[in-house]
Amino acid sequence: MRDLDVKNIHDSVHGTIRLEDWMVEIIDTPEFQRLRRIKQLGFADLVYPGANHTRFEHSIGTLYVAKMLTDDAEILASALLHDIGHAPFSHSGEGIVRKYLGKEHEDVRDILMNSRIREILEENGMDWKNVARGILKPPVSSVIDVDRIDYLMRDSHYTGVAYGIVDFDRLIKTLDFDGENVYVSIKGVRAIESLLISRYLMYSAVYHHHVCRIAKKMFEKAVEWMISENELDPRRLVEMDDHDIISAMRNSCGFPKEIVSRLDSRRLYKRAVYAPKQDIGINIEKIDTKRAEREIAEVVGLDEHEIIVDVPGYRSEEYDIPVYVNGEFVSVEEISPLVRALKNAHMQNWRMGVYCPAEHVDSVRKTSIDYFDINTSTQQKLSDILDL
Amino acid sequence: MRDLDVKNIHDSVHGTIRLEDWMVEIIDTPEFQRLRRIKQLGFADLVYPGANHTRFEHSIGTLYVAKMLTDDAEILASALLHDIGHAPFSHSGEGIVRKYLGKEHEDVRDILMNSRIREILEENGMDWKNVARGILKPPVSSVIDVDRIDYLMRDSHYTGVAYGIVDFDRLIKTLDFDGENVYVSIKGVRAIESLLISRYLMYSAVYHHHVCRIAKKMFEKAVEWMISENELDPRRLVEMDDHDIISAMRNSCGFPKEIVSRLDSRRLYKRAVYAPKQDIGINIEKIDTKRAEREIAEVVGLDEHEIIVDVPGYRSEEYDIPVYVNGEFVSVEEISPLVRALKNAHMQNWRMGVYCPAEHVDSVRKTSIDYFDINTSTQQKLSDILDL
Amino acid sequence: MRDLDVKNIHDSVHGTIRLEDWMVEIIDTPEFQRLRRIKQLGFADLVYPGANHTRFEHSIGTLYVAKMLTDDAEILASALLHDIGHAPFSHSGEGIVRKYLGKEHEDVRDILMNSRIREILEENGMDWKNVARGILKPPVSSVIDVDRIDYLMRDSHYTGVAYGIVDFDRLIKTLDFDGENVYVSIKGVRAIESLLISRYLMYSAVYHHHVCRIAKKMFEKAVEWMISENELDPRRLVEMDDHDIISAMRNSCGFPKEIVSRLDSRRLYKRAVYAPKQDIGINIEKIDTKRAEREIAEVVGLDEHEIIVDVPGYRSEEYDIPVYVNGEFVSVEEISPLVRALKNAHMQNWRMGVYCPAEHVDSVRKTSIDYFDINTSTQQKLSDILDL
Amino acid sequence: MRDLDVKNIHDSVHGTIRLEDWMVEIIDTPEFQRLRRIKQLGFADLVYPGANHTRFEHSIGTLYVAKMLTDDAEILASALLHDIGHAPFSHSGEGIVRKYLGKEHEDVRDILMNSRIREILEENGMDWKNVARGILKPPVSSVIDVDRIDYLMRDSHYTGVAYGIVDFDRLIKTLDFDGENVYVSIKGVRAIESLLISRYLMYSAVYHHHVCRIAKKMFEKAVEWMISENELDPRRLVEMDDHDIISAMRNSCGFPKEIVSRLDSRRLYKRAVYAPKQDIGINIEKIDTKRAEREIAEVVGLDEHEIIVDVPGYRSEEYDIPVYVNGEFVSVEEISPLVRALKNAHMQNWRMGVYCPAEHVDSVRKTSIDYFDINTSTQQKLSDILDL
Repeated sequence: MRDLDVKNIHDSVHGTIRLEDWMVEIIDTPEFQRLRRIKQLGFADLVYPGANHTRFEHSIGTLYVAKMLTDDAEILASALLHDIGHAPFSHSGEGIVRKYLGKEHEDVRDILMNSRIREILEENGMDWKNVARGILKPPVSSVIDVDRIDYLMRDSHYTGVAYGIVDFDRLIKTLDFDGENVYVSIKGVRAIESLLISRYLMYSAVYHHHVCRIAKKMFEKAVEWMISENELDPRRLVEMDDHDIISAMRNSCGFPKEIVSRLDSRRLYKRAVYAPKQDIGINIEKIDTKRAEREIAEVVGLDEHEIIVDVPGYRSEEYDIPVYVNGEFVSVEEISPLVRALKNAHMQNWRMGVYCPAEHVDSVRKTSIDYFDINTSTQQKLSDILDL
Repeated sequence: MRDLDVKNIHDSVHGTIRLEDWMVEIIDTPEFQRLRRIKQLGFADLVYPGANHTRFEHSIGTLYVAKMLTDDAEILASALLHDIGHAPFSHSGEGIVRKYLGKEHEDVRDILMNSRIREILEENGMDWKNVARGILKPPVSSVIDVDRIDYLMRDSHYTGVAYGIVDFDRLIKTLDFDGENVYVSIKGVRAIESLLISRYLMYSAVYHHHVCRIAKKMFEKAVEWMISENELDPRRLVEMDDHDIISAMRNSCGFPKEIVSRLDSRRLYKRAVYAPKQDIGINIEKIDTKRAEREIAEVVGLDEHEIIVDVPGYRSEEYDIPVYVNGEFVSVEEISPLVRALKNAHMQNWRMGVYCPAEHVDSVRKTSIDYFDINTSTQQKLSDILDL
Repeated sequence: MRDLDVKNIHDSVHGTIRLEDWMVEIIDTPEFQRLRRIKQLGFADLVYPGANHTRFEHSIGTLYVAKMLTDDAEILASALLHDIGHAPFSHSGEGIVRKYLGKEHEDVRDILMNSRIREILEENGMDWKNVARGILKPPVSSVIDVDRIDYLMRDSHYTGVAYGIVDFDRLIKTLDFDGENVYVSIKGVRAIESLLISRYLMYSAVYHHHVCRIAKKMFEKAVEWMISENELDPRRLVEMDDHDIISAMRNSCGFPKEIVSRLDSRRLYKRAVYAPKQDIGINIEKIDTKRAEREIAEVVGLDEHEIIVDVPGYRSEEYDIPVYVNGEFVSVEEISPLVRALKNAHMQNWRMGVYCPAEHVDSVRKTSIDYFDINTSTQQKLSDILDL
Repeated sequence: MRDLDVKNIHDSVHGTIRLEDWMVEIIDTPEFQRLRRIKQLGFADLVYPGANHTRFEHSIGTLYVAKMLTDDAEILASALLHDIGHAPFSHSGEGIVRKYLGKEHEDVRDILMNSRIREILEENGMDWKNVARGILKPPVSSVIDVDRIDYLMRDSHYTGVAYGIVDFDRLIKTLDFDGENVYVSIKGVRAIESLLISRYLMYSAVYHHHVCRIAKKMFEKAVEWMISENELDPRRLVEMDDHDIISAMRNSCGFPKEIVSRLDSRRLYKRAVYAPKQDIGINIEKIDTKRAEREIAEVVGLDEHEIIVDVPGYRSEEYDIPVYVNGEFVSVEEISPLVRALKNAHMQNWRMGVYCPAEHVDSVRKTSIDYFDINTSTQQKLSDILDL
């Protein structure tokens, strides 16, 4: 009898997921249950009202994808636990954790070591240090990994963007993990193309959507304010859930209270500038955003909290997924004209933004154009066009 | 040019939804934005991790379904606003609102009258009283209505239960609203069958799932405790969101703090009794649940908060949807053997439950069996079987 | 490297299906390739224009489902080959094969024995007699079997009826084959319900749709005519494909040519009578349809080919699928109120039909009502209603 | 009552499609019913077993898409009738019709004029000449048209390739037809991208799949043989269905009989050469394929029927779909980096092929490499890689 003592979870993306006893034990810890209350896409529901899914389901989904590639319990545990160190509102809190705690959300050693999770792992013959290390290695983290396969599919499902594009069935049948790297067979090239198309569309429509970025930046500014005013101990962030941080902001005074009220009622900052790389006259690598915010605020006569300068990292996403063909590995970029095309298109979507309250957009725009030496001739048209 | 000045919302169930200006204005009010932070299915995510969707998207989805049936602006406004009076965690808070405020969540007159919404309605030529009344009438509320068409589809999408069963396309093409009633043409009988199958499955797998009911009852008990201890003004419930109520419970002491901690870490009460009607020796209509909880607690030596007696209303869901055939209306029950079958099966799924902390299940079961004169011969088997 | 020498087939229902070498060899035989040219649902495309799928893909899909339950090569071969003996237009030709060749389409011994398939099986260590026998046994043929799981899902996909209702993922995870029987674990009851709902809807909307039955009966009458006139050797039916039989009908004269012209241009016979069991005054078990057609034709003054009397077998579909619970097997009918409901509803959809050219409907109806002693009071309404 | 006298068709791609009376009348003509028996993708089922859909459903689907853009009855009739002149096996027969009848399949004047269709059109106030002309004009035929929107979605559905990529809902909401041209609003750019991604993938995986092209070319060679031998009157092609042509080939002798037997049993010609443009030493524009086949055959000592030289037109698909932005039209290529990328990638997939029976591949390859001056260094690798 196959199913009698098995615990299943009903996942809206992957269907019924079977769990072994140790997985259930880990999921039942308070540290893991906390992930139920951390939204996967932060404030993306302001643009896509369905985007309310959580790190909890994504973590279990990542385990599911990992199970397709390996039976190694430590790797499966890494997949399940890879997000255990996320701050509230997911990546929206990531920059802060990095800045104040000097570590990435993937660095979960403290959490594993000091919780019941360590015991569960050890009771089941796993070394918790290996599990912690596994979070940073293939197949949990690499050019193509189980984490991003799950989140691309899941974020598509809940936003309704690019839904159904990933050919998961074929992808997983042609993907392999040899203990060191994740790669595809030559029969998987089309499936990889489907994954990269999906990623391209998700970046332009969701992850880099200007409204998502504005809300995220507003939230981060409020959290930093609370930390700098000693209203919030940054070490507590990895224990808090979304309720806690919103509650803290509501109970704060001044700036965080104003920000949470803006987020609640969707009175977001607006774009004063939204410029592609080639329109920016200065070297974007050298921009100090804090200083820029302060200096622009000063010229315009605003408080520095009212200006957000957003300079996303200007680097291509990784496209060099290894394909196994005729006994050797070749990058999918070499094989697929479509992948080369996507890589090229990806860079052209990059934008620097300057955001501020709606009533100050005109003055901030004027000042920012000078400050960053922006070529204005194409500005109006571009911002219209890209506000799809 | 068709689309130029139109605001669209990207819905994960219905796709792109177009909104007129007045709809956007209503959606932008703080009263409506609050619905973003009220989960549609309360604590159902404890069973279905994807069930994190909100009243916000459901309200817009209900508007979408209504637009398929009518152009009447007041009816569309009723559809959009029908849930504006919900307490946090949706129906989980409904019993409390009814008990303490003496009104149904549908009674939204106060909210409309005292907010900017009233002005928006009036500026667009609508009578806000008609809009308030419309929430209780077809096509927003009736045997078959736009509210439940949306929530059945949406709850399916996010739980993954019974997904894709409703033949929405055919349903909406064969449905009509004549100003008084919603009915289907004879060509819509199959689509109605699909809706009722979906409803049957959603009730047994989600709405009446014992874990969902236990969590809901635990939450309600905690909220009632706060009200009775003057920690919470029940009139504030219709202004609070999920963050507020969880935060209030965490800041409370004693019982609510214990309950929120149990909900957070999924240490829920367990079933001591789970009995179908025919196994209960006493008249279920006459059960006073508060008194039963007190008396059972006393016998077992527990606090009355630790016992939950759950007696759902024993009545059939409505199945008499009118079908227009040969110039007259006939109930779909008369036409469809399947609908008659579903109605009969529906009643057989009813269960009375007694729930308590895991460590007291045995003693509470023993006492409850006496108290309610329960036929125990079938108990064990049934609870096993129904715990699917 | 997982995928290198593997042959995949891209199936529109199950996705990528991997095939072992011996499977590819069987699929490549002319006997199996013939199934590409035999439509799975006969003339159902006259009602559902998308229903053009073939026995070829269904056979490979059945193999896929079987692979989920067993690794036994002989059973997999039985699943793959179970339809190899079908006559053109699938079940539309089934009655004829049975009548003239005295065997069921499942009896494929001759085909296996006399073709390259036998050698392929033997070269791969299989006993072709076991493979032939396996077609008639679980898990290929039983109350719940891999054949009907595939065809229900596939016929849904191509007709668009009841699409997505079967929860295949959960079904297959809770289904087991113990070497003798197929059964489900208690956790599979909901999935079985989904399968039976789908089957119920497919029967009423497709398999028993009166237009599908009329076309099938017209075709069978034409084929029988050709056999009785020695225009067609019935033994050749298992070698012919849909092109062959249509071509034979077009090249025939008189009746078959008339029928193929009617089928081509969709000038089908119409219903003169369409009666549920309780409206028929005589014992349906005793009806001799050939004689009835002749006698009604005589009264009305028509040729006997112009009358079709269709009396489907009056028996319930099988619902007693075994469920494994607490160490014993229980029929799903005992556990699920919904299954009992479906069984009851199923019988109420049965209809006897009398069909003839449109211009004779009135006279044939009158005569048939007398002949079968039909209660006419409910006739008009019922036929309207059921013509959904 | 909305639905009472309406005829619906259940389409597996678009769901329920409503038809007006005149549409039903046209669909009921023998000329239109013939399309039920012409497969949309010819022999693509040899690669994708689900690809058995027909011109019939595609024609009705095209009507459905057209109805989203216009109410003009003549345009709707053009959409419905645009494929009425197709030869058997669709595009597989297109080259022959063009060559022997000197007209495109879109030239349906003869069929309209000489059938009941003309009367139906005129009885409903339409000018049949406008309807015939409309087939060649927007929105039925243009850079973006209702024909290709339907076939891309439909071919995806039945092959399982790129399924679900087209965001039809958003596409149709942002598309407009101004009486002269079809274009999108700026909000439709993402939807256009989804359409073009789908088209790109369908071309590489289906339309230009080497097995599909080989089968198509084999079939065309057999049909041309029958015409040249006076076994087949090319004027009859527009009246024949798939059964007729297969039957004619089976009844032929020599070459067509051999080809149909090969197609039936999937013994197809194989690739001797498969070369991208940059590897071909001579000017591809100047290749006379008939002469090349003859000359290569002579060198190798084969019959010229046994060699197929396939030189697809080397031109980009059209990408310059007009987008309406800020009061003017801009090509989507200017706006979307992704579209530019796809256009570039598209050309890189082009291949010239030389095909012949498996046993002659080596000798034909050698001769062809000389004949076309092909750079062989990359040949082996490329053909491996592209045979995905």
